[in-house]
Amino acid sequence: MALLSKDIESLHDLFLHTLQDIYYAEKQIEKSLPKMIKKASEGPLRKGFEDHLEETKTQIKRLEDAFKSLDEKPKAEKCPAIDGIIKEADEISGEIADQKVLDAALAAAAQAVEHYEIARYGTLIAWAEEMGHKECAKLFKQTLKEEKATDEKLSKLAESNLNKAA
Amino acid sequence: MALLSKDIESLHDLFLHTLQDIYYAEKQIEKSLPKMIKKASEGPLRKGFEDHLEETKTQIKRLEDAFKSLDEKPKAEKCPAIDGIIKEADEISGEIADQKVLDAALAAAAQAVEHYEIARYGTLIAWAEEMGHKECAKLFKQTLKEEKATDEKLSKLAESNLNKAA
Repeated sequence: MALLSKDIESLHDLFLHTLQDIYYAEKQIEKSLPKMIKKASEGPLRKGFEDHLEETKTQIKRLEDAFKSLDEKPKAEKCPAIDGIIKEADEISGEIADQKVLDAALAAAAQAVEHYEIARYGTLIAWAEEMGHKECAKLFKQTLKEEKATDEKLSKLAESNLNKAA
Repeated sequence: MALLSKDIESLHDLFLHTLQDIYYAEKQIEKSLPKMIKKASEGPLRKGFEDHLEETKTQIKRLEDAFKSLDEKPKAEKCPAIDGIIKEADEISGEIADQKVLDAALAAAAQAVEHYEIARYGTLIAWAEEMGHKECAKLFKQTLKEEKATDEKLSKLAESNLNKAA
């Protein structure tokens, strides 16, 4: 978002910009998940992160399909929001020695990431529908469904993990 | 989160740390909402931001009550996640001249903020319940309900706004 003038002139520009922002975000998530997998204890949490890494790769592919449906080249636009969320996750997990507490922090960090994605895909679906970008709306809906399911799964994992940690 | 050693030793430490993080976040939101109110067009979006500013003040007070219930002094811990989300909102709104497009961007930015809060309060409620901090859980549940209602309202506002912009 290092544009200098008022470069977003229409809803289409804003839509494309937000698509580039979530494309960057998904790519950062793809990079950070292997670190989270290493830190998580073996078992359902690690497995959950591994599954989500595969899902993220599919979601990146879907974004590339969305760019294609708009006759645009996939482009990643630096997104301070996801950078901040990931930075916070890195910082806090560096402060924790106890594995059960670390698992709780990792699950919480992942839920913050999921909610960022849920907000962005929700917005993108509304805009795509408004502008008649049916293929985009369809692709984003598939991803939104997965993100919500992952968030659900993390809530349940966090709960069962806490019961063991207490 | 500028601690140098492994300072988070227990779930209680993690809980307190996250409470300090959301306290910082709410205070940053309180600071940034007046700027969003100025940028939003007169009408339901601006009114929504004005209402949410009042709500945010109550939510800050609730966090102070939560600290008190734990015999802790309210403390704000710098939170890179909310800083990133707000930075992104500032950057994008600086690029837009058209008021209807700006309104769409502002509503989307506010939803990203709401979802960050929804994730954090959800986590805090789970941890508070696990550790028997009933007063905290009660306070956070009130706020979570408000955040979800605000997110709902923003979705509807965005939709009716888009219909006018299209």
